[in-house]
Amino acid sequence: MLTFVGLGLCDERDITLKGLEAVKRADRVYAEFYTSRLTVSLDRLERVFGREIEILERKHLEEESRKLVDEAREHDVVVLVPGDPMIATTHSSVVFEAKKKGVEVRVIHNASIVSAIAGVTGLHVYRFGKTATVSYPYRGIVSRAPLDVVRDNLSINAHTLLLLDLNPEPMTIAEAVSILENVDDGTLDHFAVGVARVGSEDGLVVCDKFYRLGDHDFGKPLHSIVVLARTLHITEYEFLREFANAPASLESLVE
Amino acid sequence: MLTFVGLGLCDERDITLKGLEAVKRADRVYAEFYTSRLTVSLDRLERVFGREIEILERKHLEEESRKLVDEAREHDVVVLVPGDPMIATTHSSVVFEAKKKGVEVRVIHNASIVSAIAGVTGLHVYRFGKTATVSYPYRGIVSRAPLDVVRDNLSINAHTLLLLDLNPEPMTIAEAVSILENVDDGTLDHFAVGVARVGSEDGLVVCDKFYRLGDHDFGKPLHSIVVLARTLHITEYEFLREFANAPASLESLVE
Repeated sequence: MLTFVGLGLCDERDITLKGLEAVKRADRVYAEFYTSRLTVSLDRLERVFGREIEILERKHLEEESRKLVDEAREHDVVVLVPGDPMIATTHSSVVFEAKKKGVEVRVIHNASIVSAIAGVTGLHVYRFGKTATVSYPYRGIVSRAPLDVVRDNLSINAHTLLLLDLNPEPMTIAEAVSILENVDDGTLDHFAVGVARVGSEDGLVVCDKFYRLGDHDFGKPLHSIVVLARTLHITEYEFLREFANAPASLESLVE
Repeated sequence: MLTFVGLGLCDERDITLKGLEAVKRADRVYAEFYTSRLTVSLDRLERVFGREIEILERKHLEEESRKLVDEAREHDVVVLVPGDPMIATTHSSVVFEAKKKGVEVRVIHNASIVSAIAGVTGLHVYRFGKTATVSYPYRGIVSRAPLDVVRDNLSINAHTLLLLDLNPEPMTIAEAVSILENVDDGTLDHFAVGVARVGSEDGLVVCDKFYRLGDHDFGKPLHSIVVLARTLHITEYEFLREFANAPASLESLVE
């Protein structure tokens, strides 16, 4: 059996009871940290879970996924993944491959930035549109894709969650702003919310014009950005004004 | 301190270690089951958590929220919520009120249908647009709102998660289809995916034309529906074809 266990947003105590049971019962425990990151060390995970954990690299879940699936045919294999395991399409591909080969698959869900973002920003979850990722420039080329997604979402008056690239190093909000400035066509004039370390005790949420978010000190990663919809519900506005240091001019968005 | 603890998708073992610690340490433990439901009884939760749990009704978190907030000023109060606690705007209002009064608030996130839906359907999470809820008719009037959200999402080629009303009783997929047929303008001719009991061992996922979903037996609630975007990524199609019994004609959506 192949079990994907979500580790949630922050540390070793965000695992569920069901997830921990699966870890304790497994023949072999793997973890991958390239589709998402925790703020806790591998050592600490091993100590708290009482298991040795082997790190999977990207290739182990992509080109070489057959090895993992074959191992799960004979053994009880757990793969630990920060956040919710099925957010990354990499993992759904492995699930597909395993199921197709008749290997039993189990997914133990957990919190993900995709759902937690509403809570920390006070924004209504049903008003979020498509999600996008801001990537590092590739061979000097900056992708416009995330700004296209923002434009799509603005056309239906929806918020946009922008996740920031994790590899080789987790991108900061300041880096994201400076990358997107190269391809901006006015999107950076919109209001946005920068969030850091969602789900941890020292999380930070700041609302400002998108282009100004880079001037705030968000501290350590992980960072994400929400570009606000064309209008805000009054309670969304009040929350951002009160707890995200939003400028008074944000009021112009209230419908 | 007021701590909202997410219970995740199904049963008493979906709580996180952090959540369980908060429950054990609390002076008073409440739970609310009107914004979402678990498939487990209160008795069982009380037994496994080793605590007496008092059920909050809607009014306790709305008109009478001041009582809860005042209690949390003096005592360590936990409110258990199925799924992720901050998905419901009711809870963000209470958080707002408490923070404003200087009462410390903590949120322990957990899995939510909003993020888990991607995993169980094989659909890419970043392709979901706005979420909507199908409500029971109010005084005989059926709301067009969910179909308007589907139309918005189709205009940007995004999937739509439709949550189904929980009160007075969790709505089934068959009921949702028959309610929406009253206000349909062609949306029900699109392909959709019906999902039941996400995150449980006996979950079910079926892809068909939206109007035909009512003919399938999805068993016990909770049920939800995803209306598919105008096009599908090839891996989304393959997943639905292989594991959701999608008709061969779904292939016409592959881009």
